[in-house]
Amino acid sequence: MYTYQYPRPALTVDCAFFCKSNNVLYVLLIQRANSPFQNMWAFPGGFVDMDEDIEVAAYRELKEETGFVGFGLEQFRTYGAVDRDPRGRTVSIVYTGTMMSDELPVVKGEDDAKQAKWQAVEKLSPLAFDHDLIMSDLLKLLQI
Amino acid sequence: MYTYQYPRPALTVDCAFFCKSNNVLYVLLIQRANSPFQNMWAFPGGFVDMDEDIEVAAYRELKEETGFVGFGLEQFRTYGAVDRDPRGRTVSIVYTGTMMSDELPVVKGEDDAKQAKWQAVEKLSPLAFDHDLIMSDLLKLLQI
Repeated sequence: MYTYQYPRPALTVDCAFFCKSNNVLYVLLIQRANSPFQNMWAFPGGFVDMDEDIEVAAYRELKEETGFVGFGLEQFRTYGAVDRDPRGRTVSIVYTGTMMSDELPVVKGEDDAKQAKWQAVEKLSPLAFDHDLIMSDLLKLLQI
Repeated sequence: MYTYQYPRPALTVDCAFFCKSNNVLYVLLIQRANSPFQNMWAFPGGFVDMDEDIEVAAYRELKEETGFVGFGLEQFRTYGAVDRDPRGRTVSIVYTGTMMSDELPVVKGEDDAKQAKWQAVEKLSPLAFDHDLIMSDLLKLLQI
């Protein structure tokens, strides 16, 4: 157990990776294996280890949950609304990346993910946490 | 005291506010009243309360430490290198804003700040924490 004089938030990273393929825009999502939002789809992501830089955590979580590696991520924005996670205050730093490819790269749900899948952005169901808001913010700025 | 199953970082906000006046670019800095980096200059900022949104924390800290209010802040980037704060892991969300004015607004160091002052960006001494890096990153993107 870890004890502090003042309360602290949990810190996570989330990765929003897009692929444009045959003129359709896809985003890489995972189906959550655990609560909260169990079975709902979400961006791959998870908790930052205390001895790793935040960017390193983003690449690690993306790899652990989807097997997807080899493409660049850049920091997008940090989401910290007080009530965005029912487990308690959790602040998430969102990373993003894009690629173009005739074929969607093979991905596989692992670790905290039941499945990983490229999903057409046009046809998304509601996502876990505040990921619909994050997606909406990303799509306003996406250049691909 | 607050106890958690896994270690957590401290979460801060920092505010980098620029004013262009008579063709000179100034940034609003405070002289730190407390350690670490006591007496060094830094961006106004401080710890996020657990019941406040991160943007609200940025406006609050800027006001508390400098008295400066009434201008807009937008989120710039989050800094989370493992060793950026000698007190332990601290992740900081940086907000920024700009204005043009013939006269520099009156500011006053309060709370954790011995002084607050508009300083010419061209003539800065080394800043506390990783604020030199943050300043360098900001100046690459600043449009004023």
